[in-house]
Amino acid sequence: MGATSARARQGLPSPSYTITLRVEVPASQRATSTLVHAVAEAGGAVMGVDIVHSSTTSLTVDVTCDTVDAEHGEQVREAIDSLDGVRVLKMSDSTFLMHLGGKLEVNPKVPLKTRRDLSRAYTPGVARVCLAIADKPEDARRLTIKRNTVAVVTDGTAVLGLGDIGPAAALPVMEGKAALFKQFAGVDAWPVCLDTKDTEEIISIVKALAPGYGGVNLEDISAPRCFEIEARLREELDIPVFHDDQHGTAIVVLAALVNALKVVGKSVEDVRIVISGVGAAGSAIIRLLRAQGARQIIGFDRKGALHEGVRNGDATRDWIIDHTNPEGFTGSLQEGLRGADVFIGVSAGNILTGGDVATMNDGAIVFALANPTPEVDPIAAGESAAVVATGRSDYPNQINNVLAFPGLFRGLLDVGATQISDELLRVAAVAIAEVVSEDELNPAFVIPGVFDTRVAEAVAEAVRSESQREEGSGGGAGTSGAGLYPLDSDSAAGAAVGSAG
Amino acid sequence: MGATSARARQGLPSPSYTITLRVEVPASQRATSTLVHAVAEAGGAVMGVDIVHSSTTSLTVDVTCDTVDAEHGEQVREAIDSLDGVRVLKMSDSTFLMHLGGKLEVNPKVPLKTRRDLSRAYTPGVARVCLAIADKPEDARRLTIKRNTVAVVTDGTAVLGLGDIGPAAALPVMEGKAALFKQFAGVDAWPVCLDTKDTEEIISIVKALAPGYGGVNLEDISAPRCFEIEARLREELDIPVFHDDQHGTAIVVLAALVNALKVVGKSVEDVRIVISGVGAAGSAIIRLLRAQGARQIIGFDRKGALHEGVRNGDATRDWIIDHTNPEGFTGSLQEGLRGADVFIGVSAGNILTGGDVATMNDGAIVFALANPTPEVDPIAAGESAAVVATGRSDYPNQINNVLAFPGLFRGLLDVGATQISDELLRVAAVAIAEVVSEDELNPAFVIPGVFDTRVAEAVAEAVRSESQREEGSGGGAGTSGAGLYPLDSDSAAGAAVGSAG
Repeated sequence: MGATSARARQGLPSPSYTITLRVEVPASQRATSTLVHAVAEAGGAVMGVDIVHSSTTSLTVDVTCDTVDAEHGEQVREAIDSLDGVRVLKMSDSTFLMHLGGKLEVNPKVPLKTRRDLSRAYTPGVARVCLAIADKPEDARRLTIKRNTVAVVTDGTAVLGLGDIGPAAALPVMEGKAALFKQFAGVDAWPVCLDTKDTEEIISIVKALAPGYGGVNLEDISAPRCFEIEARLREELDIPVFHDDQHGTAIVVLAALVNALKVVGKSVEDVRIVISGVGAAGSAIIRLLRAQGARQIIGFDRKGALHEGVRNGDATRDWIIDHTNPEGFTGSLQEGLRGADVFIGVSAGNILTGGDVATMNDGAIVFALANPTPEVDPIAAGESAAVVATGRSDYPNQINNVLAFPGLFRGLLDVGATQISDELLRVAAVAIAEVVSEDELNPAFVIPGVFDTRVAEAVAEAVRSESQREEGSGGGAGTSGAGLYPLDSDSAAGAAVGSAG
Repeated sequence: MGATSARARQGLPSPSYTITLRVEVPASQRATSTLVHAVAEAGGAVMGVDIVHSSTTSLTVDVTCDTVDAEHGEQVREAIDSLDGVRVLKMSDSTFLMHLGGKLEVNPKVPLKTRRDLSRAYTPGVARVCLAIADKPEDARRLTIKRNTVAVVTDGTAVLGLGDIGPAAALPVMEGKAALFKQFAGVDAWPVCLDTKDTEEIISIVKALAPGYGGVNLEDISAPRCFEIEARLREELDIPVFHDDQHGTAIVVLAALVNALKVVGKSVEDVRIVISGVGAAGSAIIRLLRAQGARQIIGFDRKGALHEGVRNGDATRDWIIDHTNPEGFTGSLQEGLRGADVFIGVSAGNILTGGDVATMNDGAIVFALANPTPEVDPIAAGESAAVVATGRSDYPNQINNVLAFPGLFRGLLDVGATQISDELLRVAAVAIAEVVSEDELNPAFVIPGVFDTRVAEAVAEAVRSESQREEGSGGGAGTSGAGLYPLDSDSAAGAAVGSAG
């Protein structure tokens, strides 16, 4: 029952399948209304009708509508084509059109219109800047794009829910990620899609690329290679390295949990937490929950609870066994759920029913984050749970990484951070939670919306402060411009004066 | 004598050493004129004086002036500081200020303001675009940044005239290069500064990065590694690979030579050409001159002419020996110059005198491209040569790679080219030469200026045409958008309609 209603939701027309049909119709009032009616009858959600061309006998109109999927788009087209005197001239898909030619561009920040510009930005003037960096390598953070630039690195092995689709097919996601970095936090991010799956090769490539970047965001790299790659890069590089699928998710989960616990009036130290899914995201969530003070956590894979008896030598899995399930619970996920306070699913769709959720403790918190189909239908879960969150945008409480990564890297870059601690991730999560004021907090609003402009700056500020506390004020690039180069600077004001001369 | 005048030129104030001094002076007309006078006396070229702050007793002013070098800037500062009642508060260097925070930014080309935008540019809509590319890899050229993006790759081993300064110190140059790519030809270029000098590692890294790029511009990689890296990447990648220090220089040299030969009324097949410098640039120039029909070329290194007797197993050098000096000349550069028609120097400053040039044939052409000090003082050379060109911007006929690389890659990307032939380089050179009309052509104008907006488009058009001829119209990405994805598109117009819905 719950599963059915989740599937029904997926069957609604959505903006990710918006099509525009260019249609020739007879020049009459009735013809266009018939057209709109036919689209609606075929299940399309009409967004608008625009007249492209008009003559005494015919009209050319663009009908834009949301559809359910590509097949449904074809059905809408056929429905229109079958109308008397109506002809579909062309059909376009707005999602594909949005991606045509890519979603990013690289722009100069300096004028290059005159010889004077050229001789400063490029040769011969640039040679002095090069020599200054050769002489004092840490100045690269001030005098180059390194200061504000993050590499979004993937090998295309675990892209969204699509699996190993390769580096070229992963590029649209990485471009989107880079666009979000800029949009939400002014960070310049660049996609690095690697045509290799070799762990050692990925590590050595990212190390070789590091001079040009102030941080590395690993993305959609399959487990267990992602653990080794992140751990080694953190060890061997002097810029922060962050696997978003792990820590980005963990930050937003913790943020939502902090507020959900306020809603139900429970304390993180006291609640029993059941986690379904012990891969990249699950292990990072467990780590961060522990940093926040959670003591009773049990992780589950497809076969049941992780406990001493299922140790298999896998380092991440064994770490989880060492740090969770202190009472040695050995049952199934359904059994583990009984009497639990919190369920966090980062596993697979439709593995639980509303009935399973009903066996949880009073004031249950359910985060069913599998995408696009949650672990349990959120409406069914809501019949007994006090707070329900998902990864989807069409329910309340969306757990979306975009709340974390832009502000996080904004903060790291601002202070020239060299590493990322668990405590830093934790304060980022708390900062997101605190954006929701006491007045705003309720079961359907435990986490800010993705377009809430307060979030990125709150995260950045928390990260700057924690990072400076950990690394000391002398560790990073800082934001001041004093003593940067042979002659003193007056930063932006001085630059304006200089280049106006 | 010639050498002296070249050095004197270098001693002039230049815009690559522009400083701004913030100075507090007494509030009187005389005080500011004294200030300007003092700067001029100290050899600075005053660009302007701006009042920053005024009170009844004092003024704060910004004096912006060009200086000769950093030391000279300090002298100007001291000259002002020593004036009665005058105090320098701050001194800033406009070249460094221009580089603060880097010279590039990455911007989204798509709106990300609403949920509707997000669901198309990112999840869930992006998944369909990913799957389309996974299904049909060549669509990456249409649906991602690959279409318009070039990697500017260096290991920092041969940066400008500075040598091996490393990848971080090379970054300001690569950023400048990327800025020029965008400014002159709308190409999105991204700096890839590699922290390795290992030939095999550089090759494998560039191969791994290739999915995200439509072309590779190798830059400032020292010989002989640059030859191996370029050759292997050309063989192993399906996107064009271009070492600018070689072929960019060769294109512009050939362009200038084509026009210089018109000026002196000689034919390329008949002239005797002496080339000083047989490294990366020299060997590429020889290759391209041969493609244009030149038959009598002699290459010289520091020890003299390259001939059968000096073979040493180096592949590039031996190739030159195989393809030049048919008469087996064995003398010095000075000896070789006697009676020659063309001198092309890509070697070292001040190795020839005006007297050496005077021994050349009538209507001599001299390209003295060593930077910043040419092989022969251009004024001295001009006393006997008919046409003189240098790499410097303060003499007529500047040989500058910026005339070639932006339009070249514009053309390659437009047609989705997979390789670069010698013939393609040659037509690019001829296209540059042809920008100079019969009416414009004279000994002081054999090559267009770097800001001539006709050049990039002329080069791009020649490259598109030649590349399509070589690769066939089906080979590349083309510029049409038909049949790109499941549903047909109406390109930009359709996209606008779609996203407005």
